[in-house]
Amino acid sequence: MKTAVQYEESLRQLNFKVYLQGELIENPVDHPIIRPSMNSVKATYELAEMPEYEDLMTAVSHLTGNKINRFCHLHQSTEDLVKKVKMQRLLGQKTAACFQRCVGMDAINAVDSVTYEMDKKLGTNYHDRFNSFLLKMQQEDWTVDGAMTDPKGDRGLGPSKQADPDLYVRIVEKRDDGIVVRGAKCHQTGALNSHWILVMPTISMTQEDAEYAVSFVAPADAEGIFYIYGRQSCDTRKLEGGDIDVGNKQFGGHEALMVFDNVFIPWENVFMCGEYEFSGALVERFAGYHRQSYGGCKVGVGDVLIGAAALAADYNGAQKASHLKDKLIEMVHLNETLYACGIACSAEGYKTASGTYLIDLLLANVCKQNVTRFPYEIARLAEDIAGGLMVTMPSEKDLHHPVIGKVVEKYFKGVASVPTEYRMRILRLIENITLGTAAVGYRTESMHGAGSPQAQRIMIARQGNIAQKKELAKAIAGIPAKG
Amino acid sequence: MKTAVQYEESLRQLNFKVYLQGELIENPVDHPIIRPSMNSVKATYELAEMPEYEDLMTAVSHLTGNKINRFCHLHQSTEDLVKKVKMQRLLGQKTAACFQRCVGMDAINAVDSVTYEMDKKLGTNYHDRFNSFLLKMQQEDWTVDGAMTDPKGDRGLGPSKQADPDLYVRIVEKRDDGIVVRGAKCHQTGALNSHWILVMPTISMTQEDAEYAVSFVAPADAEGIFYIYGRQSCDTRKLEGGDIDVGNKQFGGHEALMVFDNVFIPWENVFMCGEYEFSGALVERFAGYHRQSYGGCKVGVGDVLIGAAALAADYNGAQKASHLKDKLIEMVHLNETLYACGIACSAEGYKTASGTYLIDLLLANVCKQNVTRFPYEIARLAEDIAGGLMVTMPSEKDLHHPVIGKVVEKYFKGVASVPTEYRMRILRLIENITLGTAAVGYRTESMHGAGSPQAQRIMIARQGNIAQKKELAKAIAGIPAKG
Amino acid sequence: MKTAVQYEESLRQLNFKVYLQGELIENPVDHPIIRPSMNSVKATYELAEMPEYEDLMTAVSHLTGNKINRFCHLHQSTEDLVKKVKMQRLLGQKTAACFQRCVGMDAINAVDSVTYEMDKKLGTNYHDRFNSFLLKMQQEDWTVDGAMTDPKGDRGLGPSKQADPDLYVRIVEKRDDGIVVRGAKCHQTGALNSHWILVMPTISMTQEDAEYAVSFVAPADAEGIFYIYGRQSCDTRKLEGGDIDVGNKQFGGHEALMVFDNVFIPWENVFMCGEYEFSGALVERFAGYHRQSYGGCKVGVGDVLIGAAALAADYNGAQKASHLKDKLIEMVHLNETLYACGIACSAEGYKTASGTYLIDLLLANVCKQNVTRFPYEIARLAEDIAGGLMVTMPSEKDLHHPVIGKVVEKYFKGVASVPTEYRMRILRLIENITLGTAAVGYRTESMHGAGSPQAQRIMIARQGNIAQKKELAKAIAGIPAKG
Amino acid sequence: MKTAVQYEESLRQLNFKVYLQGELIENPVDHPIIRPSMNSVKATYELAEMPEYEDLMTAVSHLTGNKINRFCHLHQSTEDLVKKVKMQRLLGQKTAACFQRCVGMDAINAVDSVTYEMDKKLGTNYHDRFNSFLLKMQQEDWTVDGAMTDPKGDRGLGPSKQADPDLYVRIVEKRDDGIVVRGAKCHQTGALNSHWILVMPTISMTQEDAEYAVSFVAPADAEGIFYIYGRQSCDTRKLEGGDIDVGNKQFGGHEALMVFDNVFIPWENVFMCGEYEFSGALVERFAGYHRQSYGGCKVGVGDVLIGAAALAADYNGAQKASHLKDKLIEMVHLNETLYACGIACSAEGYKTASGTYLIDLLLANVCKQNVTRFPYEIARLAEDIAGGLMVTMPSEKDLHHPVIGKVVEKYFKGVASVPTEYRMRILRLIENITLGTAAVGYRTESMHGAGSPQAQRIMIARQGNIAQKKELAKAIAGIPAKG
Repeated sequence: MKTAVQYEESLRQLNFKVYLQGELIENPVDHPIIRPSMNSVKATYELAEMPEYEDLMTAVSHLTGNKINRFCHLHQSTEDLVKKVKMQRLLGQKTAACFQRCVGMDAINAVDSVTYEMDKKLGTNYHDRFNSFLLKMQQEDWTVDGAMTDPKGDRGLGPSKQADPDLYVRIVEKRDDGIVVRGAKCHQTGALNSHWILVMPTISMTQEDAEYAVSFVAPADAEGIFYIYGRQSCDTRKLEGGDIDVGNKQFGGHEALMVFDNVFIPWENVFMCGEYEFSGALVERFAGYHRQSYGGCKVGVGDVLIGAAALAADYNGAQKASHLKDKLIEMVHLNETLYACGIACSAEGYKTASGTYLIDLLLANVCKQNVTRFPYEIARLAEDIAGGLMVTMPSEKDLHHPVIGKVVEKYFKGVASVPTEYRMRILRLIENITLGTAAVGYRTESMHGAGSPQAQRIMIARQGNIAQKKELAKAIAGIPAKG
Repeated sequence: MKTAVQYEESLRQLNFKVYLQGELIENPVDHPIIRPSMNSVKATYELAEMPEYEDLMTAVSHLTGNKINRFCHLHQSTEDLVKKVKMQRLLGQKTAACFQRCVGMDAINAVDSVTYEMDKKLGTNYHDRFNSFLLKMQQEDWTVDGAMTDPKGDRGLGPSKQADPDLYVRIVEKRDDGIVVRGAKCHQTGALNSHWILVMPTISMTQEDAEYAVSFVAPADAEGIFYIYGRQSCDTRKLEGGDIDVGNKQFGGHEALMVFDNVFIPWENVFMCGEYEFSGALVERFAGYHRQSYGGCKVGVGDVLIGAAALAADYNGAQKASHLKDKLIEMVHLNETLYACGIACSAEGYKTASGTYLIDLLLANVCKQNVTRFPYEIARLAEDIAGGLMVTMPSEKDLHHPVIGKVVEKYFKGVASVPTEYRMRILRLIENITLGTAAVGYRTESMHGAGSPQAQRIMIARQGNIAQKKELAKAIAGIPAKG
Repeated sequence: MKTAVQYEESLRQLNFKVYLQGELIENPVDHPIIRPSMNSVKATYELAEMPEYEDLMTAVSHLTGNKINRFCHLHQSTEDLVKKVKMQRLLGQKTAACFQRCVGMDAINAVDSVTYEMDKKLGTNYHDRFNSFLLKMQQEDWTVDGAMTDPKGDRGLGPSKQADPDLYVRIVEKRDDGIVVRGAKCHQTGALNSHWILVMPTISMTQEDAEYAVSFVAPADAEGIFYIYGRQSCDTRKLEGGDIDVGNKQFGGHEALMVFDNVFIPWENVFMCGEYEFSGALVERFAGYHRQSYGGCKVGVGDVLIGAAALAADYNGAQKASHLKDKLIEMVHLNETLYACGIACSAEGYKTASGTYLIDLLLANVCKQNVTRFPYEIARLAEDIAGGLMVTMPSEKDLHHPVIGKVVEKYFKGVASVPTEYRMRILRLIENITLGTAAVGYRTESMHGAGSPQAQRIMIARQGNIAQKKELAKAIAGIPAKG
Repeated sequence: MKTAVQYEESLRQLNFKVYLQGELIENPVDHPIIRPSMNSVKATYELAEMPEYEDLMTAVSHLTGNKINRFCHLHQSTEDLVKKVKMQRLLGQKTAACFQRCVGMDAINAVDSVTYEMDKKLGTNYHDRFNSFLLKMQQEDWTVDGAMTDPKGDRGLGPSKQADPDLYVRIVEKRDDGIVVRGAKCHQTGALNSHWILVMPTISMTQEDAEYAVSFVAPADAEGIFYIYGRQSCDTRKLEGGDIDVGNKQFGGHEALMVFDNVFIPWENVFMCGEYEFSGALVERFAGYHRQSYGGCKVGVGDVLIGAAALAADYNGAQKASHLKDKLIEMVHLNETLYACGIACSAEGYKTASGTYLIDLLLANVCKQNVTRFPYEIARLAEDIAGGLMVTMPSEKDLHHPVIGKVVEKYFKGVASVPTEYRMRILRLIENITLGTAAVGYRTESMHGAGSPQAQRIMIARQGNIAQKKELAKAIAGIPAKG
């Protein structure tokens, strides 16, 4: 496994092409807007080095028997699935941000079982190729970016019906040595903190869209790939040089548009190439794993937000108010409900043909559906407890101002024993998670990551077995089974 | 194990003293108001005889190695805890009612570990006594009623401060051969379908209430015990002789006031006698197990209600309306969220000192807290889908009336292919669960069974570890741990 | 105006043909199941006699200048619309039930403006006929049943496409002296407490369904009309002779199927006969008025339920618990939100061409949409506060039993100063509204009365003016109006 | 009345002392961070000049009979109260921001009736002084900042018990010619866009806090007053020079800390000076008016957000999806419920002793309580409809970049007919309201403005008349009034 230091060094050696707010930048690792997101991924290496977290952060490779980072692991049991969720909660607690490495983990687990089944049915040899890649990934302890969401253009039209054929990633050329692909992937979480990218189709394709049924890996800095960095709320506060107003100085996340400008992929890195009939399964399983993930990571961030709200109440001298205690209980209740869903879909997981364990799909979708709701209510309650000061406080420059600083210190003090700075820090952290850079992860990603709410509802309809429920009702009501 | 037939016969041999709506009745088993509740408990024997349900319905006794009904089992693993929840969902699906046998199962599991720890600490020998009882219970396949809730009188006063000292069950005499107890237990679910009762204190007692810290078993028809049967909404429809208007002809549940009029309990049946400092643990564990239970049984009833609502839509010819499909999805989503909580608190269970597994207390309380909410919303959605006819339909006597029957048949028909009777049956089933006899179980018991909502919130506050969450927030916000 | 006594006498003179649970009954007024519903309507006469309620309960006829019962009045101002809502809240408070007379009031107000506009456009003379009827109605102080909802059969098919052509009320013959109609109206609230019925179409009709576009009045006991009485939850408790278990001894509501078996209607009583293009307006306006109504009547019932819950807490000695106080606040908050909607759609009403005032349709639909939600949550909170005893208490026969009565008195006592009977009474009242006969009004009617939830959503979509909102957003976002 | 141009000029003549992010700035009107907030207030002048809005935007002064801006008006009727709400909705629609002038309007209406009643009871002459000020305010068409919220320090301690006596504004000296005050007011909305400030106490004071019971007016740039400007989420985007990423280029709001460093107030400008027993009434009435306000202004912003979400769906080609249509309906429903509450508390207003109309306090508090909930849900639904792109899009600099611009144009296009820029603009507007500068107004101010949620609950408890509701319940349940 890589140490955290090695991870950072390895990233520096990559030759990323990144545009950020109108400029082509170098060394994304050191850019103040990007740096905190690198720190978050780095934490996945750091914690794996710490003995107290070894059980959650590492696993034994089913390929080699070696200890590997759990992010590179294929789940071999329901216990593995449960530990994955606990690892994610831990990292959410430690970073209060999206730590970005889950997408790749969820992608390899999905690609594994689907390529296995594809090969069995179609006689292809994708699974071997995949295994070769996986072996290297585990050995090198790579961070891999799972890339699924295409731009999609007009939602009323399929891939090949779009005015511009590139609005879904597609194969533009098949050659003896490989394929050439074109298109883009949106919302790429952690792309610039990754060594490799693993591309998957974004929807179940039909025959007419076969050229869009494509899956492959490529180095994140491969020829022809470039990135346009996404803006986040309050992103430029990181350029101000302070450490209070940013709310979370050390950690963050990022998303970028990843563009494939006629990128060549050698055959050994291709895992699907036109087998549209397996695209649906790949999407469904990846989404399933990733919907499980949110029952861990968002719960960890929720823990931090609950703690911050409790501190805000303490610093206000309001911690004994029964309505505040009740709001904290409600926050815990909602947060643990999400966790329960994450644990349940894991504990109810099952073995696929390839040996890798899959979560219970119904419960994983139920998990994510709750994630599209409860973080919003937890955030609302945090904002209630925090008070209006969260959005009307002056800047840290005012706090540190030679003249005005004393006035800020005087009038923004809560209980006398706590420095005003602490109060400002905790309110800025709540602002960060509910409105600022981390709100992108805690709110919007909770809503749309791993599929928007309606995508889960479609899966719940499909998996909910209403037909069997009707039979149960008939039996009780005294209606013949045919009635 | 007893067969279902043997169970019914064994009940007949008991000499219950029961008052029902002003009359002292004989043979409660055969009373039309009580009978459906007996059928529900009977189903716990019936399904245990069926090979397809053997894995869920039975277990291997840790005492004897024999196959026993799971309702008599002490959980030996988290797998056992998970199977318990699945068994409960199954029985909820098959009965659409409270099947009443869980309370005893939850009680024996709680009494086991608490008596073990009590003996270790105090040098008492309650655990041996309990084991002797448990052995007989497993051998005889008894249904045991767990009796916890005292009348409580004025909620603002403790047991010994009440105007009437009997408002909590208490020891009125200690004799060489045993104790004499006095008082009553409220809301006794399934009391008249049980062979034995297992009494526990209802709150954590203090020294001044030591005489109220008492736990014991007694035959359900012991000298001095009598019952006053509780009314349920629509209970007397069962006296009308029909099979449509009752909604659920076969199954139901019941509650009764159980009165102890100076009942003698030999020492061998006493499991706590004044050790008030262990009363809290007993309450907490029993409540924990029982809060887990609701993540199974209510989900099963929810399955039936969802199925019934879907049929109501079908029979109306409205099954393609997108808003109805969406409401069914929401019902499934909420129902499965409850199930996820039941599974999660089980999968996260752990071994107590006695070897019996306990659920995760935080998640079990979160489970129950959701049960105080979601069944109400599921019921609301079912009533939305059912339409107003559910409460304005004429009686089945009208449907079967020689003259008027044809009019009923004509005007209450939905889609032409489905007999009006089926439509009436399914609407009466929905009425039964949302307003009628089964609403007592699906609504009120969901609210108050295993403790009212506020009881769970107190536990969530206690188990939620807000202090650790504050530390997480400080670390992110850059506030020293002492800040 | 009629006195309450005169009202009851006048009903006795009608020759209703009513089937109730398989029997043709006589004198519905005196049937113990029906009687409480008559009492509720009677209260609309009684309160009109009381000086303190004169301002709300009566109005000045725009036809004659005489004082009339407000239920016979056409609203002449927004003040009238507001007073209507306040009158309804008052009656809800006094009866804790559906008092049934609103449907007719809402129907006459809708028929007035629609017949006026129909005549203007088509040269018909329906409005004069309607005015003649209205004059008599005001003079005689009639209770009129507004009859709208047809059985509808298969919801996927229109009126003329049904397997049975009678599933919507239709004109089967046009004669020189009038028309003959056939069909039925479902869920007829208060039908058997009414002197006349005013029939309207239930949906917007198209040309092919012109024969279903029919509106008329008929005496409630006209030749060819008969009724099949609907069952309510717990209806037969009223036959038991007690006064506690019924929860609300004096008041209730009822619904019945009203069948038209080739009923002759003279032309003077016909207000629409094939003018399908006006059927939509009639439905929309009637529904609008009736959706406003629920912002009054249900709020009044809610007041009683909140009061009952507060008493239950008092009787338990729990009135100081902060969570209970908070739940009562929430109940008040939700209840007053409904009231606010009722008031707002009234205050924002406007004059139609006929001079009669119409409510704001958007806000009236918003009002009703909230009524499909909040009473359910208020009921849930009431059940939370009430405790499980509400559904496990024994019967009043047990309370009054010579032997067992003392036991009931002893063990169901709450605070020592309050008789057990009072506690039972208040819990039975909560049961009545949340599960029993009044739940039909407080829950199901809140859901489906004046149209099911989806009907309001369609109206909200239509009235919500999304197009204008898009223009507002474009202006702010700097997008040209054509963008 | 002032024209908009005159308003801006008059502000320039004031000599504000403002610190913003560590710098003492000059001419706040022209600072790019502050400017949009000035534009919002300016809109209150602009619209008053437009004939189509005259009826809402202006009123006739009860003092002079002259036409005045409604923001300077004392409400003379319930019609005035209703028009106030409609004016606020209009301005919310036109600015999609907090337009900041309401606080002063609500303050003058509260101070009017309270000083009148104070004079009547205590023989003081505050009301005359107030009238003199009001006359000038109306003549000069001043924007007045109502200043209520003190820093408050430790919430567990009263004003005089704080470690620092200045944490509530207080009288430090009484002189022959006036008083000297010291302290600060937090969260001062629109302070730097105001000509005068009107200070009120923030809580009901007791005798020991009499020196804190103080109300007065002062020029916003009076000697000894200075401001520290509050940070908002995304505030510095306004420094970037673009017009897309800011979301709302033209309009915004602001809050500042207003510090009183021994400020002299001549007696003619003092309206309360130690009469602590009237402080509660002043707080309650001001809060009541301001809670009404939110039933207008937030609804207007909600209209823009709904429109923006609908456009986002259109631009995605997703406008026909039934789940999106349903979400838009829900947004309208919630928004109109808020409006209904704003209208209802106005329509139910009543005349105070001074002649000025007060809203219905219960309904105004209910209104605001809903405002602490529904905008959050509306925002959540908007974020659902908007999709993840809202937070992962690149900057407008990327869109306008010579090389990368075409890539942005290509891959972020939705339906082919709509320029990518429009899509970006509408998503940035949604971001602005849900996460950015306007979220401060739409979320946090909705939560805490005019008092945090618990403040409304206390008022609802006080105004909800639970005692009368208990009497209603007793009457129905057959319990004597004394029971």
